[in-house]
Amino acid sequence: MHTALCETLGIEHPIIGFTPSEHVAAAISKAGGLGVLGCVRFNDAGELDHVLDWMDEHTEGRPYGVDVVMPAKVPTEGTQVDLDKLIPEEHKAFVERTLRELGVPELPAEAEQRAGVLGWLHSVARSHVEVALRHPIKLIANALGSPPVDVIEQAHAHGVPVAALAGKAEHARRHVDNGVDFVVAQGYEAGGHTGEIGSMVLLPEIAEAVDAPVLAAGGIGSGRQMAAALALGAAGVWTGSLWLATEEYLQTMPNSVAMQTALVRATSSDTVRTRIYTGKPARLLKTRWTEAWTAPDAPKPLPMPLQNLLVSPAHNRLHEAGDPELVSMPAGQIIGRIDRVRPVAEIMADLLSGYEEALARLEKTR
Amino acid sequence: MHTALCETLGIEHPIIGFTPSEHVAAAISKAGGLGVLGCVRFNDAGELDHVLDWMDEHTEGRPYGVDVVMPAKVPTEGTQVDLDKLIPEEHKAFVERTLRELGVPELPAEAEQRAGVLGWLHSVARSHVEVALRHPIKLIANALGSPPVDVIEQAHAHGVPVAALAGKAEHARRHVDNGVDFVVAQGYEAGGHTGEIGSMVLLPEIAEAVDAPVLAAGGIGSGRQMAAALALGAAGVWTGSLWLATEEYLQTMPNSVAMQTALVRATSSDTVRTRIYTGKPARLLKTRWTEAWTAPDAPKPLPMPLQNLLVSPAHNRLHEAGDPELVSMPAGQIIGRIDRVRPVAEIMADLLSGYEEALARLEKTR
Repeated sequence: MHTALCETLGIEHPIIGFTPSEHVAAAISKAGGLGVLGCVRFNDAGELDHVLDWMDEHTEGRPYGVDVVMPAKVPTEGTQVDLDKLIPEEHKAFVERTLRELGVPELPAEAEQRAGVLGWLHSVARSHVEVALRHPIKLIANALGSPPVDVIEQAHAHGVPVAALAGKAEHARRHVDNGVDFVVAQGYEAGGHTGEIGSMVLLPEIAEAVDAPVLAAGGIGSGRQMAAALALGAAGVWTGSLWLATEEYLQTMPNSVAMQTALVRATSSDTVRTRIYTGKPARLLKTRWTEAWTAPDAPKPLPMPLQNLLVSPAHNRLHEAGDPELVSMPAGQIIGRIDRVRPVAEIMADLLSGYEEALARLEKTR
Repeated sequence: MHTALCETLGIEHPIIGFTPSEHVAAAISKAGGLGVLGCVRFNDAGELDHVLDWMDEHTEGRPYGVDVVMPAKVPTEGTQVDLDKLIPEEHKAFVERTLRELGVPELPAEAEQRAGVLGWLHSVARSHVEVALRHPIKLIANALGSPPVDVIEQAHAHGVPVAALAGKAEHARRHVDNGVDFVVAQGYEAGGHTGEIGSMVLLPEIAEAVDAPVLAAGGIGSGRQMAAALALGAAGVWTGSLWLATEEYLQTMPNSVAMQTALVRATSSDTVRTRIYTGKPARLLKTRWTEAWTAPDAPKPLPMPLQNLLVSPAHNRLHEAGDPELVSMPAGQIIGRIDRVRPVAEIMADLLSGYEEALARLEKTR
């Protein structure tokens, strides 16, 4: 499996793998794809710098990228203390009550500081970009539309291309007008922030609308789905949920066994698109936590970044609780396909052989 | 474009085209696909018989099929008068008030009888099947899951295979266990009754779950989408919305110019999945009518078949009003691709050449 994107990014296969785990990202790059490290978990740029040093040492010179969360329009900004004041008491009380009703324990004192909350702030995302550009990264992806034009220019000045998410063709056009190099066409099926147009319809719309390589995101978890994505006009695939149930993920976040158990159990019907994670619609694993927010007395989610500030401490408690039914995790419909925790290289090999099989099957229809 | 399904159905290309118009159905069959005539518009079996006689005369001996709406579980049954009593006054008043507020005129007296309401009743759907089996049909499709087992047996006794819609792999398995021959995997993108799983995820799930040919429905409107569907494991495609904006459609329903204008204007964002058409979630063109049902004072849709009985007279008035912003029409996200009204044969030729192009593009990635 080879497209022009492989030359552009210096990779063997046009498979981009997004993950918050440096161990997974490095393994994806070493397997011939492009590992893209999610930065939102890093509260300060120093931490990220340290982890990117590790990436530089563990990727055998293979290309890798980073993913930041940066709205084009600068949202409410400030220190966490300032922002906390903007969160209504009703919301705080609902979260506390829900955690109590779900039987979620308080965090042990040493886990208190783990929260990756500030990565959602514009200023922190900018510091992520600055640090990342001091490393030999091959891609900066923004998990929300175009980053500000000066950030794109800064990346280009370092010879680093920029990718942005689009859920509509008109967004994709705007991104490319802003200087974005690759469009990630994020279909309804996708985990995390996503729109309402399914990949089958969205992908060719975006591929026909822009004169830039398009990466297919949403519903890509097998070789036949990669073949479908390329048939629809994609230059490569953007995968995410697939890499959550990997052995390497546990090396970065050993307390993720419950999350992985939940993914292995889940069917493709066990996700929900909701604003409760960040304030914008995002697809999450459906659990007792997401269900609690659909109760008649549940408050409406707050705008970004307040909703994430509200729920981040709760996410940490839910994560530490170690109960698969209480996980809070962005995940796409493709999780129905995950039936066990595997090494990254094995998943990559399956993707590639499945792709060849799909193409061989298609050839027989001519 | 050729698969084993072509032999099974005696067609040239594995393209099934669903349509309520006999002119469109005949044109699809003559163009090498399988035209499938929707029967729900026929209040009595005699009318259907008459139209199928027309089909027999106008399809040049090419295969065609029919589509009925028959829940596996027999729903509330009765004459229209009996059923009318089950519709709450609040609902009737809301419909009347909404039509008035939208400025929709009363029907001219001669149009009063056109309403295709009773086709949604189980007994009427059964009479459709009986009439259809007296014609040389090559497929009975049920627009809702499995039909009752005795209906499947009746079709098989006439040598006619049965297709059923599935929005989840577990439904597909159940249909095949019931004796259904083909599964129509209906993705989230699709027009009409549809589930929440996108085609990209649903199709391979169903193709891997059942040992029966799978037809891809939802998001299929171009050759590259057909190539994607086959890459995902489909044996052929099931198309619907695509054929609404055809010249032949107007031959059956000349008062559909406003509907066609609405489709040409619409983008892929201009549909909505709602219960207001039949009581079950179905994707419709988004118009001022669908928006009215999202108002805070709008009542909740009634269960099938009451909701359809409630809104059918309104649909006729909306249709006759001739205003693209007031159309009530099931339609999939693929309508974003419709940019003009065309002859069926031209659409078919584009599908086939687009398919070849997509395959040629894929071959270069090996």
